Amino acid sequence: MTAGMSDETSILVDGEPRAAISVLDRGLMYGDGVFRTLRLEAGRAVWWDDHLAKLAADCGRLGLACPASELWAADLQRLSAQRPDGVLKLMVTRGIGQRGYQPPQAAQPTRIALLAPLPEWPASLWQEGVTVRVCDLRLGRQPRLAGVKHLNRLENVLARAEWNDPAIREGLLLAEDGRVIGGISSNVFIHDQGELLTPRLDDCGVAGVARARVLQAAAKRGLTVRERDITLDALLAADAVWLTNSLIRLWRVVRLGDRVWPQTDMDALMREFLHG
Amino acid sequence: MTAGMSDETSILVDGEPRAAISVLDRGLMYGDGVFRTLRLEAGRAVWWDDHLAKLAADCGRLGLACPASELWAADLQRLSAQRPDGVLKLMVTRGIGQRGYQPPQAAQPTRIALLAPLPEWPASLWQEGVTVRVCDLRLGRQPRLAGVKHLNRLENVLARAEWNDPAIREGLLLAEDGRVIGGISSNVFIHDQGELLTPRLDDCGVAGVARARVLQAAAKRGLTVRERDITLDALLAADAVWLTNSLIRLWRVVRLGDRVWPQTDMDALMREFLHG
Repeated sequence: MTAGMSDETSILVDGEPRAAISVLDRGLMYGDGVFRTLRLEAGRAVWWDDHLAKLAADCGRLGLACPASELWAADLQRLSAQRPDGVLKLMVTRGIGQRGYQPPQAAQPTRIALLAPLPEWPASLWQEGVTVRVCDLRLGRQPRLAGVKHLNRLENVLARAEWNDPAIREGLLLAEDGRVIGGISSNVFIHDQGELLTPRLDDCGVAGVARARVLQAAAKRGLTVRERDITLDALLAADAVWLTNSLIRLWRVVRLGDRVWPQTDMDALMREFLHG
Repeated sequence: MTAGMSDETSILVDGEPRAAISVLDRGLMYGDGVFRTLRLEAGRAVWWDDHLAKLAADCGRLGLACPASELWAADLQRLSAQRPDGVLKLMVTRGIGQRGYQPPQAAQPTRIALLAPLPEWPASLWQEGVTVRVCDLRLGRQPRLAGVKHLNRLENVLARAEWNDPAIREGLLLAEDGRVIGGISSNVFIHDQGELLTPRLDDCGVAGVARARVLQAAAKRGLTVRERDITLDALLAADAVWLTNSLIRLWRVVRLGDRVWPQTDMDALMREFLHG
């Protein structure tokens, strides 16, 4: 073990094997930070450059100084030596400041990298698709934080606490006005009347790297692909629904309540975009 | 020093002198926790019972098991032996869980108590009042979290980052529809046409202990006191405006932009409610 550990998780804090951070870190005090979750596969971090770019962009949204790519690359190298496959999590917090909400002028951000085993998910989730539900919790509107994967995730926690049935793999989150925003840990795509659509995320939600890759790949293929408002009724009426994130890449939604979606031709293409 | 320390801050984690918590703690991962800020004065924690009751209520809102009062009392005793006056912060997080948003079934909450020196605020803030501004950031509506002092405080951080002028002591936070909700670290009261009013906090904002004490004390005195929607115009038109929290107790607002409020008879009464 190079790194601080808890069970099978290896942790680096500012490049050092350490499993703890200061209680005074603003990441704990206020959730003042951002993170990324990505997949380590055969020693390679999937979509690494995309993740570093998004991490830097999210840091920018909060006025955080993002640690340099070389530092993350060094962390990756050190962690991947422990285990070739796993879930990699990168976090940046604003570090330790004086008491109070005001961000310190010369904050030294805290850089955290951790590697955990991949979840034990059955292959059927990719082969047959997943069942989802609609969460009761509605996401609050906050344009200043929309799209950013920040450390204020109580909405996700409360939404995920709504059910225990392991057969339901994901919960859909709606905005207050009923628009579908995404899954608790995923983005949503639908295929409807020949168009590939995903919710716009100007008000709330997290804009994931897998989502961006689908948008780019589809456009490159000449497909009509748009960010648009999607009501729950529109989703239910769609020909196909998918969930995307960097860990699962792509899951087809097969069931939501009484609605069952059969497989369509689009699946192979979506898979190509994210598994290709 | 009994406790883990950084500068002059003494820290207890689960009753032990320790300045660090696990990177895997859900308090850091998701802001999955709640806190209290209170005043230690001559070895006595001001409004201690109110704070413990509110901490337990806030834990209940998140489905967290709140540590027993006796544990907090032991922490208080240990910390107050270090320093008779200061800012006391109590935090409860959901502790360490498996990966992912789902709260662990048998979570062991993390209990944190820390004591820092009181801020060096001039007496004039209490004697002459304070200047405030209106923040650009609008609070998002989230009834599931409204009123709770949880660890998801990025809205407060971003709002507090809007200005650096030390002459401006507090920023007022509005809801999206323009209602005044409170200060970044305080609650707001206004006196208008013989009524004492404070914003209702069903949608957003934090319902502080000082606010609750004013509501109780005023009602006991037979004053008309109400929780109500308050627009910025209504606040500007009010006869008097105050900020309350457990650290400052009471500051009178003396200026907001061009609007200057003279002292009124109500000040003495408000002070009696919170300093009495």
